[in-house]
Amino acid sequence: MGKYIYGFDVGGTTIKIGLFSSAGNLLKKWEISTNKDKDGKYIVGDIYNAILKQKIPSTDIIGYGFGVPGPVVSGVIIECVNLGWENFDLKAEFALLTGNDNIFIENDANVAVLGETWKGAAIGYKNSAMITIGTGIGCGIVVNGMVFSGADGAAGEIGHLRVIHENGIPCKCGGKGCFETVASATGIKHVFIEMMNNTDIPSKLRGMTGVSVKKIFDSAKAGDALCLAVVDEISYHLSYACHVISVTTNPAIILIGGGVSKAGEFFIDKIKTHFDEFHYIPVKDTIIASASLGNDAGIYGAASLVIYD
Amino acid sequence: MGKYIYGFDVGGTTIKIGLFSSAGNLLKKWEISTNKDKDGKYIVGDIYNAILKQKIPSTDIIGYGFGVPGPVVSGVIIECVNLGWENFDLKAEFALLTGNDNIFIENDANVAVLGETWKGAAIGYKNSAMITIGTGIGCGIVVNGMVFSGADGAAGEIGHLRVIHENGIPCKCGGKGCFETVASATGIKHVFIEMMNNTDIPSKLRGMTGVSVKKIFDSAKAGDALCLAVVDEISYHLSYACHVISVTTNPAIILIGGGVSKAGEFFIDKIKTHFDEFHYIPVKDTIIASASLGNDAGIYGAASLVIYD
Repeated sequence: MGKYIYGFDVGGTTIKIGLFSSAGNLLKKWEISTNKDKDGKYIVGDIYNAILKQKIPSTDIIGYGFGVPGPVVSGVIIECVNLGWENFDLKAEFALLTGNDNIFIENDANVAVLGETWKGAAIGYKNSAMITIGTGIGCGIVVNGMVFSGADGAAGEIGHLRVIHENGIPCKCGGKGCFETVASATGIKHVFIEMMNNTDIPSKLRGMTGVSVKKIFDSAKAGDALCLAVVDEISYHLSYACHVISVTTNPAIILIGGGVSKAGEFFIDKIKTHFDEFHYIPVKDTIIASASLGNDAGIYGAASLVIYD
Repeated sequence: MGKYIYGFDVGGTTIKIGLFSSAGNLLKKWEISTNKDKDGKYIVGDIYNAILKQKIPSTDIIGYGFGVPGPVVSGVIIECVNLGWENFDLKAEFALLTGNDNIFIENDANVAVLGETWKGAAIGYKNSAMITIGTGIGCGIVVNGMVFSGADGAAGEIGHLRVIHENGIPCKCGGKGCFETVASATGIKHVFIEMMNNTDIPSKLRGMTGVSVKKIFDSAKAGDALCLAVVDEISYHLSYACHVISVTTNPAIILIGGGVSKAGEFFIDKIKTHFDEFHYIPVKDTIIASASLGNDAGIYGAASLVIYD
């Protein structure tokens, strides 16, 4: 029986690596850069080299878990557009290097919710969900203790839920008015600019360019009227996404993760207020809360794939 | 080893009973009236008496499956408003009568999709969903071959998805603008009346009262402009519900059941057209089709609970 588990969170810019004890304690974490050259062909070798440097005998490793930025069906990566991977059997390639095929692969949004359910803000819940707001929007849903991929690896792709039914702006998915176009980091900035240009709501930020999401939220907290209106609109869309998740999969708890969740209770309270307006009684006790593991959710969740195999 | 399985579909008006072989063939089906007196206390005895009359020795019965009209969590009925049942341990009560505790209970929308997945229009799919349109709207979702209830038995409660965001009409759930208010049988009639009163779109049905859903669909098929507009609006809402199910649970196939599904390809084609407009590429191949078992979906699905235990 081995002593250690590795959890990898493979992103478009960095790869986060976590070394865990067999009991699931995080012993060490670090990250390496993601080399996307030649359709990401160097990534697997880079990860292997990074762990080789730890000089842990391979027989001491129980297994390896990966979170990857794209759809995964039955452990096979359908595609990771950001990395250049397509129909990629990561497990086979990594097993060749390590000589250990106890390898598990899941979508990054799925490993994030697993991490939070294992060691974060959703501990103990068998039905949970997590919406992560970053450059895009990710979502993982846990049903009866398990994440799922759906028929095409698109389960939890709530970023492409249509929330604007008329004159929505185009989304990279080919649709229009997707949740991601109004609530991702880019989307929030877009809503701010639109509202600044199309209303007379006063704001100290008028005339500034390159206003960050953090600045918008900080200004809203300080009482800036325009920023409050922007945050209110974002909160409505986010509460609607929570509503959609509730009436389809009915989790007991929905976590909000990603940079925006740093706005804390101020933001969560606004989401809850709108969520309550939907009013469907059986899900009225659904908890909406901030995720707690920050950028480590992915490595925790990836490691949990090995633990809960 | 027993030879037979019973599947029961308990509704507010009738209880459908199916006798199946151990191989899953429907041998006989019939129905009895639902006696809702005294909070439904006679229902279980009525079902037991109905099967007693078949004179099949109890040792020949493998087990019993029930579909019930309300939320079920881990086999316990949370409530069935229509029947008067609340926190009701149907399994314990029926086991006392039959002396056999191989009894499985699920929500009726869940057994319907299981029935269609076992013997109907979704055979062979591990990820499927079914929206049933009747007086209300039910929905069951199959993930990796299993239905799920969620934290409060509200999984698949898509009838209470908000689809009208402003000035939606009140729903019995306490919310406003729910999918059920515009796409259930009652909802469709309401949309027809609203559109008749608030537009000048010509129709042969203008001035008529008590127009049925069937009449609306038949008239639309015959080219009636107002009815075509009504069916188009309903189709949009239904396609949106399919879109919501797709971006959360990503089934390979979504079935439309209930009386309205008798409108057939005419209706399905309109739903598909709108669904394609949402355009999210990973789920573009999602099949939308009519359910095929009609009123028998429930007894099939209830029996399948015993078969696939």
